[in-house]
Parts: sequence; C-alpha cells; structure tokens
Amino acid sequence: MIGDSIDVARLQEVLDGRWAGIRQAVRDGLGKAGFAAVHGETGDEARDRISALIRQIPTDVGVASAFPKAYGGSDDPGGSVVAAEMLAYADLSLMVKAGVQWGLFGGAVVALGTERHHEAYLRGIIDTEIMGCFAMTETGHGSDVQKLRTTCVYDPVTETFDLHTPHQAARKDYIGNAARDGRMAVVFAQLITQGQNRGVHAWLVPIRDADGNPMPGVTLSDAGHKAGLLGVDNGRISFDHVTVPRDMLLDRYGQVAPDGAYSSPIENDTRRFFTMLGTLVRGRVTVGGAASAATRAALTIAVRYGDSRRQFGVPGEEREVALNDYLAHQRKLLPALATSYAYAFAQEELVGTLADVQAGPGPVDEHRQRELESRAAGLKAMQTWHATHTIQMCREACGGAGYLSENRLPALKADTDVFTTFEGDNTVLLQLVAKGLLTGYRDAFGSLDGWGRATFVAEQVREMVLERTAARGLIQRLVSAVPGRDEEVAVTDRGWHLTMFEDREKHVLEGAIRRLRNGAATKKDRPFEIFNDVQDHVLKTATAHIDRITLEAFVAGIERATDPAARALLDRVCDLYALVTIEADKGWFLEHGRLTPARSKAVTAVINDLLRELRPHMATLVDAFAIPDEWLNAAILREEPGRQEAMAEEDARVTTA
Amino acid sequence: MIGDSIDVARLQEVLDGRWAGIRQAVRDGLGKAGFAAVHGETGDEARDRISALIRQIPTDVGVASAFPKAYGGSDDPGGSVVAAEMLAYADLSLMVKAGVQWGLFGGAVVALGTERHHEAYLRGIIDTEIMGCFAMTETGHGSDVQKLRTTCVYDPVTETFDLHTPHQAARKDYIGNAARDGRMAVVFAQLITQGQNRGVHAWLVPIRDADGNPMPGVTLSDAGHKAGLLGVDNGRISFDHVTVPRDMLLDRYGQVAPDGAYSSPIENDTRRFFTMLGTLVRGRVTVGGAASAATRAALTIAVRYGDSRRQFGVPGEEREVALNDYLAHQRKLLPALATSYAYAFAQEELVGTLADVQAGPGPVDEHRQRELESRAAGLKAMQTWHATHTIQMCREACGGAGYLSENRLPALKADTDVFTTFEGDNTVLLQLVAKGLLTGYRDAFGSLDGWGRATFVAEQVREMVLERTAARGLIQRLVSAVPGRDEEVAVTDRGWHLTMFEDREKHVLEGAIRRLRNGAATKKDRPFEIFNDVQDHVLKTATAHIDRITLEAFVAGIERATDPAARALLDRVCDLYALVTIEADKGWFLEHGRLTPARSKAVTAVINDLLRELRPHMATLVDAFAIPDEWLNAAILREEPGRQEAMAEEDARVTTA
Repeated sequence: MIGDSIDVARLQEVLDGRWAGIRQAVRDGLGKAGFAAVHGETGDEARDRISALIRQIPTDVGVASAFPKAYGGSDDPGGSVVAAEMLAYADLSLMVKAGVQWGLFGGAVVALGTERHHEAYLRGIIDTEIMGCFAMTETGHGSDVQKLRTTCVYDPVTETFDLHTPHQAARKDYIGNAARDGRMAVVFAQLITQGQNRGVHAWLVPIRDADGNPMPGVTLSDAGHKAGLLGVDNGRISFDHVTVPRDMLLDRYGQVAPDGAYSSPIENDTRRFFTMLGTLVRGRVTVGGAASAATRAALTIAVRYGDSRRQFGVPGEEREVALNDYLAHQRKLLPALATSYAYAFAQEELVGTLADVQAGPGPVDEHRQRELESRAAGLKAMQTWHATHTIQMCREACGGAGYLSENRLPALKADTDVFTTFEGDNTVLLQLVAKGLLTGYRDAFGSLDGWGRATFVAEQVREMVLERTAARGLIQRLVSAVPGRDEEVAVTDRGWHLTMFEDREKHVLEGAIRRLRNGAATKKDRPFEIFNDVQDHVLKTATAHIDRITLEAFVAGIERATDPAARALLDRVCDLYALVTIEADKGWFLEHGRLTPARSKAVTAVINDLLRELRPHMATLVDAFAIPDEWLNAAILREEPGRQEAMAEEDARVTTA
Repeated sequence: MIGDSIDVARLQEVLDGRWAGIRQAVRDGLGKAGFAAVHGETGDEARDRISALIRQIPTDVGVASAFPKAYGGSDDPGGSVVAAEMLAYADLSLMVKAGVQWGLFGGAVVALGTERHHEAYLRGIIDTEIMGCFAMTETGHGSDVQKLRTTCVYDPVTETFDLHTPHQAARKDYIGNAARDGRMAVVFAQLITQGQNRGVHAWLVPIRDADGNPMPGVTLSDAGHKAGLLGVDNGRISFDHVTVPRDMLLDRYGQVAPDGAYSSPIENDTRRFFTMLGTLVRGRVTVGGAASAATRAALTIAVRYGDSRRQFGVPGEEREVALNDYLAHQRKLLPALATSYAYAFAQEELVGTLADVQAGPGPVDEHRQRELESRAAGLKAMQTWHATHTIQMCREACGGAGYLSENRLPALKADTDVFTTFEGDNTVLLQLVAKGLLTGYRDAFGSLDGWGRATFVAEQVREMVLERTAARGLIQRLVSAVPGRDEEVAVTDRGWHLTMFEDREKHVLEGAIRRLRNGAATKKDRPFEIFNDVQDHVLKTATAHIDRITLEAFVAGIERATDPAARALLDRVCDLYALVTIEADKGWFLEHGRLTPARSKAVTAVINDLLRELRPHMATLVDAFAIPDEWLNAAILREEPGRQEAMAEEDARVTTA
C-alpha cells in the first residue's frame, strides 16, 4: 500500500544514485535561465549562443570528469555521462556540443591516442581552447564503419601520411563542430602502408587555422538546416591529399614505424577495429541517458499540465475534470512514466558498469567489456525510441499548447529525434545486441561483420545462459519463490514478472537459434538469406533481452530505497512497468502459452487498478526528477497573474451557464 | 500472383478516383518549384512567402470549389477537400493557410450565414481580398466547445451585440490568420439575449482595418513560434466590449429579432449546437486527407532512398545490400505503405459521402449526416496518428539524411504533428465515434455532452447492427463464403479478414455495453466513473470500427481497378494491410479465441512472405501516388553529378578493400 504522503527528497535520492553529487553540482551551477533552451532562434543565433555557452560551463560540474586527473579531469567516465544527462534537461544543443567536444573528440584522443597526444592536446580540449570534431561517418557509410572510404597512405620518404577523400560519397558528413567551431578533428580512415590496408584507424588533424580558415587541402561545408539541434554546427569535411605528420596517428592500437612497418598489440584486423570502437562506447551510453533525461523533462511538463488543465464538466460537480483524472490520459502518461523510471535505473546501472570497467587500473576484462557494449547499444536503442514516442505523446497530451515553442516540448522533440539514428542506428544496434547473444560474448568480435558469418554463427550458437548482473541473489530468490502454476501467483508478484521476462528472452533466443540452424543447413549458398529471413525474430531477441535487464535493474534499484514510503511507491511503479511491458507483448505470451486468455485480461484489469492507485502520486513521481524550473521553461507551467481568480470565476460560471 | 510489370498509370487512376480531374489540375497548375516547401526560413520569411503564395493559387484548381456556384465556386465540397490534400504534398503551411481561409472561415460563412452574408462577403473571401479567421478555440476551452466563455450580449436599445472576453482564459487562441493577415473573423461566443443564454453562436466580426491595425476594442497578439507550420500566422484575439451590428450574427440556425426575441428552426439548444458544428465537418475531413498526403510524400522519399542506399556487403556479391532488401526495413516501410493505401481508399469514400450529403439539394438526411460526422472524426484521428508514426519511421529509415531539412522529412514531420490535436483532439474524437456507436445514430445529439449522460447511454444502447456503406453486396458475399472453421480458410482469404474485423468490432462494442450497464447499475451516484472506468474499452470500440470501415473501403476500392495487373497488386497490398492490422492486435484475437496460437504464428509468417512478394513493387506503389518531384524536393533523391560513377567505383572497392 502506498502511503498518503511521500517525501519527494527521499525518492529523489534513490534516482540521483551514485553520482548524486554531480547531479546536484550541475543543478546548482547551471540551473539558471541563461542555460535554458531558447526557441525561435535562427541557426546562426543558436550556434552563436551555444558556442559561447559551452565556454561558460565550469569544468567542476563533471562535464570533463572522464579525462585523466593529470590533465584536469578526474578519471571518472561515469561522472561525465551523468553531467551530460543533466545538460540534456537544460538544452540538448548544449549537451550535444559538449558531447562532441569532451565525449567524442576528447574521448577519442584519450582512448586512441598515447601520452604525447594527451600531453599536447588534452588541456586545450578540456578548456575549449581546441574545439574539435569526431570525423567518422561518411556520406556513403554510417552504419558500416569498417567500409569507410577515406584513405590515409603512409609515405616513408617524407615520413608523413597522405589523407584523402577519393570521391563525394567518402566525404565526412553530419560532423558536429565541423561547420564553424572545430579547429582539429579526429579523422577515421583506412590506414595503408607498405601497400597494405590495415583497416580503419584515427588521426588527429588540424582543419582550421587560428583565424578560422580551412587548412590547405581541407574543404569544409555546412550540413545545412536540421530538424533540431540548431545550436550544433554540423558540417562536411573533405580532404584533398592532406599531409599529416606520422606522429598524428592516434597510435594506441596500431603504430607505423618511420619505415612504414605496421605493428599492433592486436593481430587480427577485425578484432583490433572492434576493440578501438569499444573504447568509444561512452558516446552511446551518453546518448541513451540524454534521451531519457529529455523524456523526463517532457513528462514533467505533461503531468503538471494535466493536473492544472480541466476540460468537460461533470453534473453535480463545480469544477471541470482535470485531464489527469481521465483513464485515457493516465493510460498515456503513467505507463510512460513507469518505463522512464525503469530506464533511469537501467541507465544508472549501465553507467556504473562503464565506470567500473573503464576506470579500473588493470587491463579491461574482455567479457565485461563485450557485455558493456551490448547493453550500451541495447539501452541506447530502447531509451531513444522511448524518448521519441513519449515526447510525442506528451506533446499531444498538452493539446495545442504542446505545439507552441514557448512550452519547450517542440524543442525536446525535434532535438532528440536524431538520437534514434546517431551514435548507431537503433535497428543496427539491436542487431548487434542479438548477435552478441547468439554467439556468446566470446565470439562477439565478428558481430558487426555483416551477413557473411551467418553460417558460422548458426554453428556456434550455444545454449543460452541468462547472465544477471544486478542483485543476482535477490532476483534468484524472487524467481525461485514463484509456484509452478501461474494461476496460483498474483499478477503483481515480482518473481512472476521476472520469470515472464526471462522465459520470453530464453524462448525467443532459442527459437532464433533453431531457425538460423535450419537456414544454415538449407541455404548454405545464400548467406544473406539465412539471417535476413529471420531478421525480425533476431531483433526480438534483443528487445526481450534489454527488457529483462531493465526490469532487473529496476528491482535492484528499489533495494537502494531506504525510506519505506518511497519504496512502496517504487514497488507499484515497477509493477506498472512490468505489466505494461507484458501487456504490450501479450500476443507473444498468449501465442506461446505463457498467458492464458483469462490471465491476460487480468493483467489489463490490474494495470487499470494501478493507474487509479498511482494517480495521486503522478506529481510526486515527476517532482522527484528534480529538474530546475529554470530549465523546464514552459510557459504553460508558469502561474499567470490572476489565473486562480479567473479559474474560480470560470468554475462559478460552469454551474450557471 | 502479381505480374512482373505493373503500369503505374493504371494504378494511379485507381488512387486518383472520382476527383482525378482536380488532382491533375493541381499537379499541372502548381507542380512547380515555387510551390514547394522551403526550409530554414525564419517565421517572418515563411509568413511572407505563404501570404503571397495563397494569393497566387488560381481558383480553378479546386481550392474554392466548395463555395456556391453563384459566387464563383462549384458547389463541390469534395473537390475542395481533394485540392487541399494535393496542396499538402507541396507545402503544409500553404495547405493550412488555404484551409483556414476557404475551409474554416469561408466555410463557416457559407454554412452558418445566410444570403446577405454570402452576397456581401463570399466573393472577397474566395479571391483572398478578405482574409479571415475561424475564432472558436479559447485558451481555456478547446475540446469542450460548448463551454466557451466569450459572450455576445444583445442590446435591443442600440440593436447591437456586445462581444466580450471576460478573462484571460476566454481569449481566442491558436487562431490561424489572426497574428497578421486576418481582416475579419467568424467568432464563436455565448449568445445572450433577453437575459437568457442561448448557447454558442457565431458572428462575422471585423478585426483589422484597411491599414492592418486592430479594430477598436480588439486586441491581437502573436501565438509565437511553433513546432511547425511556420508560414501560418497563428494568434490570439481578445474583445473588450466590441460592438457588433445585429445583422453580423451568422443566423442560419438562430435569429435575434430587433427587440431581442430569439428564434431558431431547432428548438433544443444542444441539438442546435451540434447541428451547427456538423455543418463544419469538412475541416476534419480535410485534415485527415492532408495528413495522409504528407504520409505518402514521406513514404515516397523513404522508399526511393531505400532502393538507392546500400549498406553492408555480402560475401560473393559485388554490391552492398540495398536497405529495402533487408527484412527489417521492409517490416517498417511496407506495412505503413499498405496502411496508407487503405486510408487513401477510406478517405476517398469519406469525401464521396461528404459530397453526396452536403451537395444534395434537399434537406440533409440526419442519419447520413451523423454517420458522416462519426467517420470524419474517426478517420481524422486514425490518419493523423498514422501520419505521425509513419513520417517518424521514414525519417529514421533515411538515417542522418532524414534529419537534414534539405530532405523534406523534418518539415513533413513538424508541420503535420499538430494534426493529432487540432480540428479535434484525437482521443476526444474517438470518444465521439464510440458514443455514436453506443447510442445509435438517432441518439447521437448528446454524444459530446460530457459524462452526465452515461446512465442514459447505458440504458439506450441497442443491439449493434453493423452498417456497411461500401460495396455491401460484395462484402456480404465474401463474408458468407468463409467456412465455419478458421482452420479451413486461408490466412489471405478476404472474407476471413472481413469477418475478423467485423467480429472484433461487434464483440468489443458488446463488451463495452455490458460494462457500462453494470457500471450504471452500481455507480448511479458517480456518473463520471461509469464512463471513465471503461474509457480504454470505449476507445477500442472506435478504433475497431474505423479499422473495419477502412478495410471495407479498400475492398470496395479494388473493385474500381479495371487493369488486372493493378488489381492483383492491390489485392496483395490489401492482404498485407488486413494481416498487419490483425497482427498488431493479435493479443486481443488470442484472448478472445478468435485466433489459435498456431494461426497467429501463421499470420506473421504470411506477412513475411507478403513482404518478399511486394519488395519488387515498392517503387511502383509510391510512384502511383504521382507526387511531382518539384514538390518532394528532397536532396537525397536528386541525382548528383558523378554519383553513378562514384558508386561504381565504390562497388569495385568493396571487393578489394
């Protein structure tokens, strides 16, 4: 039973979690109007403002905490992800600009470079003296990064590289900081030395001189107007045989000697490539977190509006009905809110894993690294889609007011839209998750390698063993306590929820394995078809997997709540998350005998009961996000002078009209 | 079996339908770059351009065809809806601006005014000399229009009305043409005469003088920046005791004599109000059609891009794989495309009904009018949600390119977003549809009347009789031919599809009736709860109903195809629409024993077969929309010089890289 009054602060402390200090530092340091999103700007105005603003962010609020302590950071990648998430509440252009500078660009220099690069550039990168780009994507290749066409050919005579864009489709595209502010770029290209292609590597390349003019051989252009993120200057970069000194190769994973001899600590080209990419996983973690922050901002606006906005009268009552009192409105807002809670806990756990994996002093544990990459990919996809759907729903829940820029929702929507396809297209990312599950993490190095390995994969698939990371013991106990027959267990039993999620994942995965094996047996000469014919099934393994780890993270997160009232409320929210997730896929559960028709209907009935029970706590649930009002900056949430009086007058008229 | 080559023109003629002439006239007359959407404009630039452009639309392309012949129209409301739909392909701001001027504003003068208003104003409205507003919505009341707070009090001494905005929440809000261009407005307000409130009526009120300055007592302001539709000048209007001459009351449904005596051909206030609203149904029909046109434009861009864009190689093949060859990509695009075909036929049928009901010379048949309103509301809701989901999906299917304004998708998305809540909030509209079904059309006058009539409704509900309008005989034959046991009938049997859709509608409706009756018996003193507790069930009756009439319209539409190849293709597209609709709700069908688990899985398998079968025809299916390239105006669809050569080079490199 949920208590009547919940102490919001006690709920907030559960959500704020391990990086509560950084969250509060950003609220305190930047929680003012000057950092709030601005609407109706031209592209140039937005870029001017964001360019100036990024230089005003004090580094002690965590934005640069992923950098080594020696250069002004705090060796805390988790802190930088959380700081970025907080920036997303305020202004997504600012968050993305910061993400490009300190995350993608600076992060690549840290992860792929060696000490001489760190020594020469990191201080300038942290203090924004050197603004930079992360030049990976090309017009012709975004998802299939191994096929990038830009070449960088080593010449032992001059001891320099020749960086070149062979044709239009090989130009670097959609690159943040490229159109205006970037002075340098981490450029990804095929490394060719001694006549041999060694695969994709990265170089640190100056692209503009001190006056802001393009360097010789570098062509820079503007990607033009975008749907959102107007404050980020995305652009295109082409190289016409640009000379790059040998020591500008970011050579942690691949070195070229003066004579052109290539060496690497990782022999296998594909394995090296994925190891390099793996070090950049923080970008995906950050995007997922930022998407969820934007979603929470939208929900805060819609829930508060739904409490104040009234429409249609009820006979015998003086006031019209608040939108949040309508079942249909609760059916929109509360499941999305419960899912946002679930993702907040899953994201917190993911950031914790990132911090633990990357911050440790010893070599990275390969198994944990693969698992981190898989969960980062999956949670990025699920959180960004949840953002797109939920922000749209919130916009509609605010009616015409939701369409006005002064109410923030248009910017939240337009700015986050691209998250579903940048830092990895969501569908491609889910495929990555699925292939990791199919082959087991040990074999995951080939997981992005197109379709060719389908036969291999089908042969290598092993019995699925569910690996739990969160609160293992607790979850095992809950699952073990479920009686054999579903009819005997309550629809709100947590162990039953966990069993349903686990069982679905396991069954879907085993089915995919079986179909792939059959395909491999009958379509040996058509490797593309083996995978493509079951692509929908394969993608479902990924979503079932991410749903399961999300629920487990929620269950583990509730354990952190020490206040009984907050805990009781979170338990109900978790019930709602689990049940709406089951309801959304009830077709599958019914098809596979995991739900009887009667129990399926009971799930829906219990959801409606939960909506009624949670209705009085909707405001508390969004208050606990603790988003400064200065950032929300929505006109519909500001009390207008005389509004109460006008409403009282209206209420009086309702009865006389 | 679909033939190898389909004549696009023969497919187009089926889609172009009854108003093919107007469609072609708009293509021919406006199918040039000057009418295409422009991106990256400031609000002022967009407004300037659209203001100028609306004056350049020749009236012979159908935009004004709903007006009486006597004043330059052609008494053809269907033609004006279709013309607006065509404008939506080009530029949605232009479409909405035209819709405000000739549809809402002009349409209200025609429908609610009498001859003296027509004579004085219609010519000026048609030729845009008199730009006007439709001032219904207020800040405080959008959905519940009966509760508008603006008052218009008659004074028999001066023989004038006093139009007044009593407080801030009563100001007119989001009003198109109000911020800049509107000279007059049709203003909705409570008519009070002889001390009695006669309910909402409309007046024709000048709001700006010839110099563009506000009239005395009129306060005009700008609604500010919006998520989209930047070319439409939405604004707010307040009235401070503005004097309105007696003859400016649009008095077709309610007259005030010089002495203040009120009279009306319709005695009952609520009935009169809904009759007046009913005459304005064309707006909803137009918005649904425009949303679907924008969806087809987005699908055209995404399908063509998916044919040209290639990503990831297959061993043994020279070229990378086209996006459209991936099952996951087909799973996104083709069901949306099939649903767009279904709505195109449903919309065509709806426009036909509108034309037949409104254009006839005699009095309007009340039953047909109610049915028209219900279908207009339901199809508006379903088409606008389909638009929002599908355009977003198309944006994502184009990756980063889909986020660039130069590729049109951002504008299609941002501009159509508001359609889900304007001209009636979708959820409120579906409730209207459901209540119409619950009470039967005869009793529908109370259908918008809040919650108070719940008891009444629960008592009045009658046995549901499915009323078919399209191709009754054919559909009855198909349904009758279905054997009793599902196992004996193919998953692609049209009669089985029709039976499944019908059966669901009937069962959901009967269940809602039962629950309402039970609620009415046990919650007599809580009328709000009676309805609210089953609101999700009630809304499902509406979507099941609209799905059924949509499928029937598709089936009827195929009958119009005289070319066997086009017909065979349409048959397969209809299979896909029917099956993805069943699949999306398979949870319900399984819960209610309408699908066995085995048959449910068979539905999914057959859908995947259909995707493979339709893959070669995706381009044909979008070509048949016949949207001029000048309007699509997407950079990714334009052949760049040297692109073929670059791609050939790339293809060669794939094998050597």
